[in-house]
Amino acid sequence: MFRKLLSLDQAKQRIEEHFNPQPLGTMDLPLMDAVGLVLARDITSSIDVPPFNRSTVDGYAVSAEDTFGADEDNPVTLKVRGSVNIGELAELLVGRGDAVEIVTGAPLPAGTNAAVMLENTSQKNERISIFKPVSKGENMMALGSDIQQGDTVLKQGVVLSSREMGVIAALGQDRVEVFRRPKVAILSTGAEIVEPGKSLPPGKIYDINTYALIAAVKESNGEVVSFGVVPEDDVNMLEAKLKEALDAADVVITSGGVSVGPKDLVPKIIDRLGKPGLVIHGVAIKPGKPVAVAIADGKLIVSLPGHPTSSLLVFTLLAQPILLKMSGRGRKLRNILKATTADRFFSARGRRTFITVNVSQDSDGHWVASQASTGQSGAITTLANADGYVELAEDQQFIDVGEEVTVYLFKNSL
Amino acid sequence: MFRKLLSLDQAKQRIEEHFNPQPLGTMDLPLMDAVGLVLARDITSSIDVPPFNRSTVDGYAVSAEDTFGADEDNPVTLKVRGSVNIGELAELLVGRGDAVEIVTGAPLPAGTNAAVMLENTSQKNERISIFKPVSKGENMMALGSDIQQGDTVLKQGVVLSSREMGVIAALGQDRVEVFRRPKVAILSTGAEIVEPGKSLPPGKIYDINTYALIAAVKESNGEVVSFGVVPEDDVNMLEAKLKEALDAADVVITSGGVSVGPKDLVPKIIDRLGKPGLVIHGVAIKPGKPVAVAIADGKLIVSLPGHPTSSLLVFTLLAQPILLKMSGRGRKLRNILKATTADRFFSARGRRTFITVNVSQDSDGHWVASQASTGQSGAITTLANADGYVELAEDQQFIDVGEEVTVYLFKNSL
Repeated sequence: MFRKLLSLDQAKQRIEEHFNPQPLGTMDLPLMDAVGLVLARDITSSIDVPPFNRSTVDGYAVSAEDTFGADEDNPVTLKVRGSVNIGELAELLVGRGDAVEIVTGAPLPAGTNAAVMLENTSQKNERISIFKPVSKGENMMALGSDIQQGDTVLKQGVVLSSREMGVIAALGQDRVEVFRRPKVAILSTGAEIVEPGKSLPPGKIYDINTYALIAAVKESNGEVVSFGVVPEDDVNMLEAKLKEALDAADVVITSGGVSVGPKDLVPKIIDRLGKPGLVIHGVAIKPGKPVAVAIADGKLIVSLPGHPTSSLLVFTLLAQPILLKMSGRGRKLRNILKATTADRFFSARGRRTFITVNVSQDSDGHWVASQASTGQSGAITTLANADGYVELAEDQQFIDVGEEVTVYLFKNSL
Repeated sequence: MFRKLLSLDQAKQRIEEHFNPQPLGTMDLPLMDAVGLVLARDITSSIDVPPFNRSTVDGYAVSAEDTFGADEDNPVTLKVRGSVNIGELAELLVGRGDAVEIVTGAPLPAGTNAAVMLENTSQKNERISIFKPVSKGENMMALGSDIQQGDTVLKQGVVLSSREMGVIAALGQDRVEVFRRPKVAILSTGAEIVEPGKSLPPGKIYDINTYALIAAVKESNGEVVSFGVVPEDDVNMLEAKLKEALDAADVVITSGGVSVGPKDLVPKIIDRLGKPGLVIHGVAIKPGKPVAVAIADGKLIVSLPGHPTSSLLVFTLLAQPILLKMSGRGRKLRNILKATTADRFFSARGRRTFITVNVSQDSDGHWVASQASTGQSGAITTLANADGYVELAEDQQFIDVGEEVTVYLFKNSL
């Protein structure tokens, strides 16, 4: 055991020295069940897309060279050799001087290299007059112009949204290999907390952190294993539950029981669950100072403060980036906006300080950030009503009114 | 049937005249299963949070009045009447001149109104000396200071994220009433398209839109019912499938088969599936012109263009806002950023034009938007590689290099 306040950056580095967050395996899923999951392998195309020269107009497939010089007064005349419909293969023998009727999406027959739009032609029996020249490749999507066989079209680590799903489908794949989500055990401790849904005895309060963290873990690509509330005063029970959580999950997150009072057993227990044990006990941030982190034989245990705002903020700062790496995400969440401050934001001397803020748009559409509340970190409503937070460095005294700041948003709707 | 190009705003208004998007019912769910769903009722607290005056320090509960004037040289001396632990009810009789030992999180006994920090005291037998005065309410969270009984703490329409989950748990609720997700049937048409996973005959291409739209609907709070590919050339089959889709879902979305070629049957069929029938056939936007919308006896049918980029863009512009309203969301998705243009963006004369862009940050952290590709709207890779789009009004010729634009992002990670 030791008591030393690390800076936030030192704390992150300390974790990195002992724990290397990596994806924990892959799953092969039907494509339609993979929305929101993370691609586990680069995807390389085994086909050309489109797989043929595809007309983008209704009209005639031609040799572009035959149309050169055509205009309203001197149309070029070609012989119509047949027609190709959408979804058909054009098995026509076409040469110079020939044209083939074609619709949007149909394949150009071999021997043609462009399409003439219907409105620039007139047909009489088996001959058409063309009033406007086309260049080679005009009005068609060439074979392989979207995707070429052998192209790497998607990179490992991308989250599968509508656009990536479309790309995979374009290659003809109906299954995809994605990373397994990390399993995260959530466990609240504290003699005073009671699970929601039960009656509330005098002197007790309802457990907020379990539910807030369930959502936060899901939002960070984790899969939740909830252990509910474990009374803090029963050391043996608490240790047994923590061991059970370590067996069941890849990461264990507890909240409560990390301050320096006489009953703060969690740091002591997590120190002895495996090697190397406790690596962080206290970080110089506000709110959130009483956080502890242990590594137990390759598994991560994060003990968050009991106060809901501190708990969620420290989760966001320390645990979320690790969960995103373990879920294989190659790109960061982008959830920031630039805003001008409406208030002066003060820091806690020597500690990285996080101010919860509300943002609104002024009449020019620019964002303005104002302090959400000066309330205590225990107040869940302060957090629930805030839109995001602003960060002050350890050596920064304050941010003045009218300065530009980066707001880290809690979610994607305002 | 009619052929008239409406402007985008006229098209939206036309839909609004005939279709009023409303949530379709509610579900009562365990709180932990409600992450990401939309709250169906305002939530009012039946309790005070905290439910008692709660100490925020380790020390002594006192009457603040007893400590007035105390300093290092003239400490105030009080009699220690006992102790209160966390999670306990303080059933002590405390009067002026008394102090009670207390820990962080424990309830202050009746008769006390503040807490003195341990480090500002010294204890000798049953008496403590206090070296620093406290004011009334200091070092405690007062009963109801976070949430008062009767407070409306959350409003209908909010999406349940970690912070809202925390608030609901704080009230002791382990269940919550949320809006049912709208059911959305997805159906692709076209003689040339083949479902991914099957072999690709000559002249055919793989269906991209079904999978792209499955993800887009899920991202818009919808529940997907997939009908796969329906061959466009079989009128009876297509009509039967569309009727089946209408029965199975609240909204039907088709793609393909809306251009003006000889086989474009979808607008004709959706016009006769119910009253009032077709309300939109063609919108003056680029890409995406060939879109059709019908209302069939209170259900919405949106026929998107076949080209993947057009299809997803029109979905985002016309269908997504309706699905969000039907899912009960009170707030809009915020997925925009302000950027400076790196290219000149040209519009299609007289049509609302959407330019797909990539964004990057310059060395000052400001965003720069450049055109993703000048490729055709059929190219899925153009869309997959873009970060978002920029909008040009019908009467705007171009946006010049260096202008500030709003970028509508496709998703939340860059």
